[in-house]
Amino acid sequence: MDTKTKRGLRQSLNRRRFLKLGTGIGAGLALGGTGLAGEAAARGKHAKGDEFMEIMHTRRSAREFEPTQIPDDHLQMILDAARTAPTAGNQQPWKFLVVRDEKMIDRIRERALEAQLGYRIKEEMGDEAKATARRQAEDYVAQCTSAKTFVVVLTDNESNYPSYNWHDGPLAAGYLILAARSLGYGSVYYTDSISETIIKDVFDMDDRYKVVCTIPLGIPKEWPAKPDKKDLADLVAYDSL
Amino acid sequence: MDTKTKRGLRQSLNRRRFLKLGTGIGAGLALGGTGLAGEAAARGKHAKGDEFMEIMHTRRSAREFEPTQIPDDHLQMILDAARTAPTAGNQQPWKFLVVRDEKMIDRIRERALEAQLGYRIKEEMGDEAKATARRQAEDYVAQCTSAKTFVVVLTDNESNYPSYNWHDGPLAAGYLILAARSLGYGSVYYTDSISETIIKDVFDMDDRYKVVCTIPLGIPKEWPAKPDKKDLADLVAYDSL
Repeated sequence: MDTKTKRGLRQSLNRRRFLKLGTGIGAGLALGGTGLAGEAAARGKHAKGDEFMEIMHTRRSAREFEPTQIPDDHLQMILDAARTAPTAGNQQPWKFLVVRDEKMIDRIRERALEAQLGYRIKEEMGDEAKATARRQAEDYVAQCTSAKTFVVVLTDNESNYPSYNWHDGPLAAGYLILAARSLGYGSVYYTDSISETIIKDVFDMDDRYKVVCTIPLGIPKEWPAKPDKKDLADLVAYDSL
Repeated sequence: MDTKTKRGLRQSLNRRRFLKLGTGIGAGLALGGTGLAGEAAARGKHAKGDEFMEIMHTRRSAREFEPTQIPDDHLQMILDAARTAPTAGNQQPWKFLVVRDEKMIDRIRERALEAQLGYRIKEEMGDEAKATARRQAEDYVAQCTSAKTFVVVLTDNESNYPSYNWHDGPLAAGYLILAARSLGYGSVYYTDSISETIIKDVFDMDDRYKVVCTIPLGIPKEWPAKPDKKDLADLVAYDSL
């Protein structure tokens, strides 16, 4: 079999696999309205698409977690899904720093508390206000660092196309968060509470890596209510701004 | 019912809804191993998680599309899913510019061709090489602009926390692409072939909006093969770099 035929066959297999999975009306049209996808189209349904969307719509930012570790096979599935994100010229500039060592989490917690105290306690505050602010900072940081697994998403400044890393980093982090949600785990995209400064310091990182965000993974103590959202119509424009 | 009780009830409903959806082992643990999720855990399966992951793993960057329009209800579902992405302080700094007007697509095509000719044709090339480069540019641009719907993902520099827009923009674009995939549509994340310069010029945009990327949506003519990927192990580090 020559390379072209092999490629054709692979594309054809990929196409069938794609159509089998994509049960939307779109796929139904691509198949000429026949097969599974066509049936779904005829019923006006796209079951897998609906489930997929529902998982997206029920994702929430969770900050406080049960004290249980997530199984390693789930972590591997989540990381494996993160890297399916679009990436400029297939460069894959990612490094996923998994933090599970309690000593490292303790160090993050200490530095996060210092930062929160810095934000919350002001010179001019009275003693009582200072004590309240300290308790709030401690409670907040205890929540933020309650997970047993954290993933720091980094991009490598020595990647093939580093000027595109700002796209690739959030893309992979967003896919990681969705993959976790699909398996029943909560997470949140931290940029400040566990900041780049904290991470770079705790892990003694040089300038090669950019910290995109830090993501705790676990079973949420509570699944937060949906925050208020803008109307979709306010976010969409057609053919001109 | 006081606000706190209402909130508690809503959280409890949200929690049940979440657990119903999240059929992973994680959710099973959260429920104490009972219910639907517990059954899934007992079987060692997480069916919806698997399907979700499979959709992620079979997403590809598609550039050439069938000349069919995607139905408006699907477009709305895709846009609605895009904005479920994480966003700093719930700011939702997005504007999704949907381009379906053929005149506007023609203008994008013209500008994209100019740009490709600029990249590909060099002064020192002979006439034949120039003619070949021109044909290649034309073919490439015809592909890139073959969709009947494009979504330009923008972020608003006047959002609540504009310094976080670089996270929020790619996050929503990535979710949009996945949502499209779940309904059977192909897409790609363009940053260069349809560049910010082209978009700003064609739509006469001022500095208020940043162009994150442009995404064509449609039924792919061919579903590309999976590109070569790095080993997952090379992308992951544990507790230190």
